[in-house]
Amino acid sequence: MPGNCGCNTCAGASPCELNRDVCQLKELVRSQGKQLGQLVRHMKMGCKKPPKESTIKGLSPCLKCLQPDVLYHLGMDTATMDFPKVFGDVRFVCMGGTAERMERFAYKIMKELSLKLNPATTLRNMAEPGHRYALYKVGPVLCVSHGMGCPSISILLHELIKMLHHAKCQDPVFIRIGTCGGIGIEPGTVVISSEALDGMLNPYYELIVQGKVVLYSSKLDQCLANELLSLAIPCEDEFCTIIGKTICTNDFYEGQTRLDGAFCDYTNQSKTAYLQSVQCQGVVNFDMESTAFAALTNRANIRSAVVSMCIVNRMEGDQILSPPECLSEWEKRPQVLVARYIRKEFLKRDDDSDTEAYEEVCPSACLEGDKAI
Amino acid sequence: MPGNCGCNTCAGASPCELNRDVCQLKELVRSQGKQLGQLVRHMKMGCKKPPKESTIKGLSPCLKCLQPDVLYHLGMDTATMDFPKVFGDVRFVCMGGTAERMERFAYKIMKELSLKLNPATTLRNMAEPGHRYALYKVGPVLCVSHGMGCPSISILLHELIKMLHHAKCQDPVFIRIGTCGGIGIEPGTVVISSEALDGMLNPYYELIVQGKVVLYSSKLDQCLANELLSLAIPCEDEFCTIIGKTICTNDFYEGQTRLDGAFCDYTNQSKTAYLQSVQCQGVVNFDMESTAFAALTNRANIRSAVVSMCIVNRMEGDQILSPPECLSEWEKRPQVLVARYIRKEFLKRDDDSDTEAYEEVCPSACLEGDKAI
Repeated sequence: MPGNCGCNTCAGASPCELNRDVCQLKELVRSQGKQLGQLVRHMKMGCKKPPKESTIKGLSPCLKCLQPDVLYHLGMDTATMDFPKVFGDVRFVCMGGTAERMERFAYKIMKELSLKLNPATTLRNMAEPGHRYALYKVGPVLCVSHGMGCPSISILLHELIKMLHHAKCQDPVFIRIGTCGGIGIEPGTVVISSEALDGMLNPYYELIVQGKVVLYSSKLDQCLANELLSLAIPCEDEFCTIIGKTICTNDFYEGQTRLDGAFCDYTNQSKTAYLQSVQCQGVVNFDMESTAFAALTNRANIRSAVVSMCIVNRMEGDQILSPPECLSEWEKRPQVLVARYIRKEFLKRDDDSDTEAYEEVCPSACLEGDKAI
Repeated sequence: MPGNCGCNTCAGASPCELNRDVCQLKELVRSQGKQLGQLVRHMKMGCKKPPKESTIKGLSPCLKCLQPDVLYHLGMDTATMDFPKVFGDVRFVCMGGTAERMERFAYKIMKELSLKLNPATTLRNMAEPGHRYALYKVGPVLCVSHGMGCPSISILLHELIKMLHHAKCQDPVFIRIGTCGGIGIEPGTVVISSEALDGMLNPYYELIVQGKVVLYSSKLDQCLANELLSLAIPCEDEFCTIIGKTICTNDFYEGQTRLDGAFCDYTNQSKTAYLQSVQCQGVVNFDMESTAFAALTNRANIRSAVVSMCIVNRMEGDQILSPPECLSEWEKRPQVLVARYIRKEFLKRDDDSDTEAYEEVCPSACLEGDKAI
């Protein structure tokens, strides 16, 4: 008896059976496509030489004289680690305040990119010997903690930028995934920084070098900020995502005009007036790292963005009273957005059938000196 | 037969036996003295009321309205912890960059003060819920990590000062036990800061509050610095201890005129000229926390000192090339000096036969809510 479509080919087959066949065939096509792509890539690679230099620009002319270069606070050096082999594939550097948050993000991004760990291994804090930061590598993604404040993140950026330079990395993107105090926005809101301003509302990062003040632009990559914003799905996400200016301060209490620090020489009235005045100028939040982060990535010609989760609405109070379990849940929100971006960029590579390179997460993190496969 | 002195009392006793008797009697006298002192103290305490307020001054008038006060970055609050009970006995707050160093110092000071842990317990990082700092309590000593840079230590100081205020602590002394880059001094040297200067060589800590620059004095306690210096024993110590001015920078690389950062827009010549010029003005080292540390403790009327170990002589290079085992050994040197100071101060109390209070290290660190006995 012919099938519903009138032909004899599918005679006797139920829709369920046909659906199963379709799924199996699709999987087979995808698998074969991967193998074909991999072969093509391997053939191409046979003719191509690996990059001689990283795409990072504007670096110190002294770097070439550092043999070895000791990245003291990361506890690594170019004499005992083969940087191109271990870090040459890095394309995304995600940074956040605490080690715990960045470890959780490392496992999240592993899942998002469908990468697997060798069952006999676990992710390792590669910066543990330095005792300052935590650094996890998940395929092409570095997840690093930066501590609190511009000085802490600036040390890390100097050493990460040198690391990627030595590793000959191509077009890395840096994203800070932070927490912030919101100005007139609800706790739990995700904020993408359009611009990083200092405490005087100038878009600069100030350094004192040899007794002289030097200013560096702290503007952020507008395209990347808008691209991240476009990945918010307002009708699906359980949170709001907004874009606006960020004031970066060197102090959490008085620098952010809080009344709940050990010291406070101003009034509630002057605090409210100050917050309202910066809000009128497009400022939506405070953080403590964005100017240094923007300035140092700018100088190295690295695209960068800041995505933060608001832990308190400063128009309504100073103390962070949301329960830890709530903050812990909200902490995932900027990670969701950043994971979408990385996944999208990663799948572009996937479309070139290149994912075989990351069937396993970077054994380099676990087996000393081994190349990520 | 009479003894050597001609009397009959020690007839027949050898000098060895007499010496043993003397030692045993001294120990008995000391033990009885302790018991007597303790009884006197208990009788006095029966008439005295515990202090109503801490000796810390100049704090925010808003503190009394904070019910509870959430010390967010320490992961503690006044609603769920009895601060006077847990921290009321704190007299020394020792701070250093990394969690590992401060944990090692906690165990060192425990040994130095002959304090014991209950065999069923271990020291606990009491600030673990905050995920930012590590805080260990050993009897009257807090050992806390502060991260890197003024913003990081300033958050910690605000919260520690509030903690000691709520705990009604009496005359606490704060000491930073750090690492530093030396100017014309050998690696491994211990440096006591006589004064903390900013990058422009001014003895100030600069804050931007509500868009206006505010300067706070960053002078350190001269008496305490000299007292610490007097505890060095040049003929016994395996290291040199010196005193001099410290420049506190907001950046480890360019801020300290290094040639080995990711960026460097100056020459080796201008670096040398700068280092020589600050050396002529009495500067002996660089750090990244001393101005904030000095200013915030000054404002609270807290005596404070900075004792650092020099990890590199910047006149000879920028990279930290000393092997980790060497740095780890040198790291103990400022701890030796600070431990001598704490032991001396602690024994003053011991002379009042008060040490019974610390036969065990603070069970409060291990058994929730229990008072240190």
